[in-house]
Amino acid sequence: MLPAMSEQLQIAHVRHVLIRLEETIIFALIERAQFLRNAPVYQPGAFGEALEGESLCGFLLRECERTHAKVRRYTSPDEHPFFTDLPAPILPPLGFAENPLVPNTININSRIRTLYEETLVPLICAPGDDRQYGSAGVCDVACLQALSKRIHYGKFVAESKARQPSEALREALAKRDPSLLMAAITDTAVEQQVLDRVAAKAGTYTAELNRNATTPTVAPEVISAIYRDWIIPLNKAVQVEYLLVRSGR
Amino acid sequence: MLPAMSEQLQIAHVRHVLIRLEETIIFALIERAQFLRNAPVYQPGAFGEALEGESLCGFLLRECERTHAKVRRYTSPDEHPFFTDLPAPILPPLGFAENPLVPNTININSRIRTLYEETLVPLICAPGDDRQYGSAGVCDVACLQALSKRIHYGKFVAESKARQPSEALREALAKRDPSLLMAAITDTAVEQQVLDRVAAKAGTYTAELNRNATTPTVAPEVISAIYRDWIIPLNKAVQVEYLLVRSGR
Repeated sequence: MLPAMSEQLQIAHVRHVLIRLEETIIFALIERAQFLRNAPVYQPGAFGEALEGESLCGFLLRECERTHAKVRRYTSPDEHPFFTDLPAPILPPLGFAENPLVPNTININSRIRTLYEETLVPLICAPGDDRQYGSAGVCDVACLQALSKRIHYGKFVAESKARQPSEALREALAKRDPSLLMAAITDTAVEQQVLDRVAAKAGTYTAELNRNATTPTVAPEVISAIYRDWIIPLNKAVQVEYLLVRSGR
Repeated sequence: MLPAMSEQLQIAHVRHVLIRLEETIIFALIERAQFLRNAPVYQPGAFGEALEGESLCGFLLRECERTHAKVRRYTSPDEHPFFTDLPAPILPPLGFAENPLVPNTININSRIRTLYEETLVPLICAPGDDRQYGSAGVCDVACLQALSKRIHYGKFVAESKARQPSEALREALAKRDPSLLMAAITDTAVEQQVLDRVAAKAGTYTAELNRNATTPTVAPEVISAIYRDWIIPLNKAVQVEYLLVRSGR
């Protein structure tokens, strides 16, 4: 069963979601990495005027979000669209239990998209152009949506922490100080556990793939570096932003 | 580089594509298996009239195909849509080298969709309903597209064999006999290699996932059984259909 929203905050559930998203992210990155960088996929106008000013990647993402908006994806508090001009749901609202988050409009998808296109694609994909633009773009959509979900899940992590705050977090919340908040939510030992687990998973998945592949897939160190340098820091940035909103109410 | 069409028929390339599709299929099945069966996803009308008579799965698939048709996915000879009323491409045609296949309209996606919804989903997913309909449906689209690609790749396999036919295949082609064709294209040793490799991959991927998961994912035996009982036989059925078209020209 989809847990009631109050259960969604239980640390065991939050942890389960985050751990399971590791596979979704690793699989998505591995799938993208089978194609070359394919720079035209990210260049607005590279395919003429037909894509309404978007790049191929942006076009595929926007059309996907339009469809998913119709079936109410973005009414769920753990989903965040990259585009704003989306159609209204055509399905009746789901009978969700109440949203456990405080009202907020935090959405850092524009940062995530820039990061992905400019930094992560060159990291995970071999340089060059194999003209498999559509296939690459379809993988990009999966990567972007998985990264966005993982990073914005910081809202649930933060709400969960704020309901049972440590002394340091209580103080930081009272002062509404971003640096103190960042320090209070940071648990280096837990972060290291995540990095170790991701490195182990990425190592296993890529080694199995490489056993039969003609060209090696993305290096596992790259996947754990993406976690270390971007996914975890951006997740924490969302946590801090959320806690600032929450403590300012 | 995307190989020229003549290279697409080289047995090493065909083999590479088929092997790499194993990961795409296994990853897609594993992703779907994180959700319960969710029967309403496959019931036309379960979400009211808004989906134009389609089930949620069908709606997501059709909308996805509409988008992909616009960026000319189905102009590629290795892609086959599930729906027929798709929009024309809005991008100019790709400068593909010539299509190496003989003209044909073989498309068994309606069989694949029924098989997937009625047989494979109950095999890979635990029974029950977690109400994560949208997430499940998005995974369904990925599964269906991967299965369709793998199964219809039989056209390339068959064309490759027909260009360098064995004695048995030469005879079967001359007689245009489906049973002889099936016998001539069947290589039990190679099939066993595929099954062994898929079993090894599925074993590795699911074991890694289960190390940290709260509930076990799809059993690896199920994944190799799907290959044994459906993917390989349907791929061979496409090969025979294709060879009948090819030898009747």
